[in-house]
Amino acid sequence: MENGALSNIVVLDLTRVVAGPYCTAVLADLGAEVIKIEIPGKGDDSRSYGPFVNGESLYYANLNRNKHGVTLNMKVEKGKEIFRELVKKADVVVENYRPGVMDKLGLGYDNLKEVNPRIVYAAVSGFGSYGAYHKRPGYDIISQAMGGLMSISGPEGGSPTRAGNAMGDILGGLNLTIGILAALNARQMTGKGQRVDVSLVDSVVSSLETCTQRYFATNEPPKLQGNRYGHLSPYDSFKSKDGMFVIGCGNQKLFSLLCLKALNRPDLLENPMYLTNDLRCQNHKTLKAEIEKWSENLTSEEAVDVISAAGVPAAPILNLKDISENRHIAFDREMFVTVEHPIIGKMRVNGNPIKLLDAMPRIKSCAPLLGQHTEEIFGKFLGMSAEEINRCREQGIL
Amino acid sequence: MENGALSNIVVLDLTRVVAGPYCTAVLADLGAEVIKIEIPGKGDDSRSYGPFVNGESLYYANLNRNKHGVTLNMKVEKGKEIFRELVKKADVVVENYRPGVMDKLGLGYDNLKEVNPRIVYAAVSGFGSYGAYHKRPGYDIISQAMGGLMSISGPEGGSPTRAGNAMGDILGGLNLTIGILAALNARQMTGKGQRVDVSLVDSVVSSLETCTQRYFATNEPPKLQGNRYGHLSPYDSFKSKDGMFVIGCGNQKLFSLLCLKALNRPDLLENPMYLTNDLRCQNHKTLKAEIEKWSENLTSEEAVDVISAAGVPAAPILNLKDISENRHIAFDREMFVTVEHPIIGKMRVNGNPIKLLDAMPRIKSCAPLLGQHTEEIFGKFLGMSAEEINRCREQGIL
Repeated sequence: MENGALSNIVVLDLTRVVAGPYCTAVLADLGAEVIKIEIPGKGDDSRSYGPFVNGESLYYANLNRNKHGVTLNMKVEKGKEIFRELVKKADVVVENYRPGVMDKLGLGYDNLKEVNPRIVYAAVSGFGSYGAYHKRPGYDIISQAMGGLMSISGPEGGSPTRAGNAMGDILGGLNLTIGILAALNARQMTGKGQRVDVSLVDSVVSSLETCTQRYFATNEPPKLQGNRYGHLSPYDSFKSKDGMFVIGCGNQKLFSLLCLKALNRPDLLENPMYLTNDLRCQNHKTLKAEIEKWSENLTSEEAVDVISAAGVPAAPILNLKDISENRHIAFDREMFVTVEHPIIGKMRVNGNPIKLLDAMPRIKSCAPLLGQHTEEIFGKFLGMSAEEINRCREQGIL
Repeated sequence: MENGALSNIVVLDLTRVVAGPYCTAVLADLGAEVIKIEIPGKGDDSRSYGPFVNGESLYYANLNRNKHGVTLNMKVEKGKEIFRELVKKADVVVENYRPGVMDKLGLGYDNLKEVNPRIVYAAVSGFGSYGAYHKRPGYDIISQAMGGLMSISGPEGGSPTRAGNAMGDILGGLNLTIGILAALNARQMTGKGQRVDVSLVDSVVSSLETCTQRYFATNEPPKLQGNRYGHLSPYDSFKSKDGMFVIGCGNQKLFSLLCLKALNRPDLLENPMYLTNDLRCQNHKTLKAEIEKWSENLTSEEAVDVISAAGVPAAPILNLKDISENRHIAFDREMFVTVEHPIIGKMRVNGNPIKLLDAMPRIKSCAPLLGQHTEEIFGKFLGMSAEEINRCREQGIL
């Protein structure tokens, strides 16, 4: 499939900053025609977020590759009219305003479904469009704090720690993408679109997977436990001569290989403190000390090589330089892709992790300049002439 | 839609532990008929992971709600034959074995597409099915270490820190779900299924969003910076009398509200060190100290109340007890749902964050006991009689 798995889908993208734009980037990478609609003269807030090259935001340029960019003032009547005409030709509207903003403009789902009953209307916000807190503003840090993630992340005895990326936004964007695709599937059955409502906080809560079960089983909220996992051992980070590395020893056979073939410590295998995974979880501290006695004499690379050669999962802790140069990650899996931007020049954007083998995600174009495709898109979809577009531009509508 | 947005989809689920089961739980919550196929007498590895209630794993029970459970020995010819018959009736096969395992069984995509060209074959693994590292085993901790996430998470001056949940698994599961739904959409156009290949490491790399751009702009891998964000300030956690809370002050107007209406410190607003967001990012340390001078005299709840009342985003850091009792999260948004399990009794499982307003995700049933639906499913899909099923059971096939 030359044009991608979603090449039959047209998306009107009103989103800003991270959560929404991440979702529409995934849709665009998979072949959807994404039309990003920005405020004339200003655009997505993230156009003003650093880092910058030649005055252009890399932040924006990374998350908005593969999208068409148009400007439209949706606060004036003519702008709303143009938007409604676009909605007639589209499959999906995506927005990440605070709940209620689109309704106040007269462009909420209840309005738009009158214009096009097949439209899927997808919104992501801090707390969702209903529920006690739905009017609260939500940013990524709020979702990491209120979704419980910070309370279980961080060094033992230390403080709650957030994931260093905007993880709440990413989880929200991924869930929104699933919701859109599920609603499009439902439309095959019903002929009708519907609303998709995703919240960052819900998305973080859902990501906690089994951690919540540990609380339900004990009635004790889990304490911070650094990099180790509660139910597996040794499954943690360990000190080396030059830093840290990780071991993921998921079962008894792997523990046996670790002791016999990597550490050369058959005594550990027979030690009553470490006989079973449950015992190792209880005695993780002393076991860690035993392993570090060995690894502190080696570099991380040496330790990982020896443990891996023994058939036990182990890995270095890669930084962003490492991953961007790593053969498997950066090149074989195309997780960094070079595009040519008219102002930035050559730049590397994040690749897409969803490999459809007969319809690979493709990064075909860089992010749009503000309003770059206004003529093209409004001409193609609405039949507007260059003259008409110019007139609208003079009136501040485009 | 009484039966959910994916009620036309039948999924054969060969997955174990987290990444795959999380994906198929999302599909099941949205209405897909998910048939979990487990090894006779043993089942999913996570049936042996704690915590336990009455000997049953809450870990397994949480991630496998809403699924049908059958047993099938796919290592013997009759078992393979039964599996191929199921594939004829299914839309999707999902697995998270190490790449190559299904091919060795003669049940890889190339075999199954001969049986049913419309089948979507989705696999999630540590490093994906191709690329230099594709044979390496990958667990969540490996993906958090090699995907770059640990290198940017953790206290300033501290050590790389993983997210306290199995975040790599969750991201992988979400991307796999998107890939499946995109491939089903593509099938509407082509009439054919295809392979979906997702890796945990790719999924973590993709989640780094703009952090990689900070590296590309400076050629310096970002250092650990605790809970603050590089490009916004004050946007961080802050100490209170009884713990910590967060402030998300995303723009100049919010900073002004914070200084004037919450901290009562107009001098901060006029201080040349804090005039712009860029300056505040540079001088985040002294600004944090100024804010904590105020907040250290208040409880987290008091500080959040004052700042929120000023119109500035702020939040407590909730633990798992807090979120499970929170009105908005647990009840209004249904992020914890009670189901009745025949052995565990009443238990709370995680809700689904993808709210389709005309086809809400629903948690209709608890996780299956091992082989619970073998008769029902093999009867319904393959017309097998109770007698035939019993014979297969005696032979170790079911």
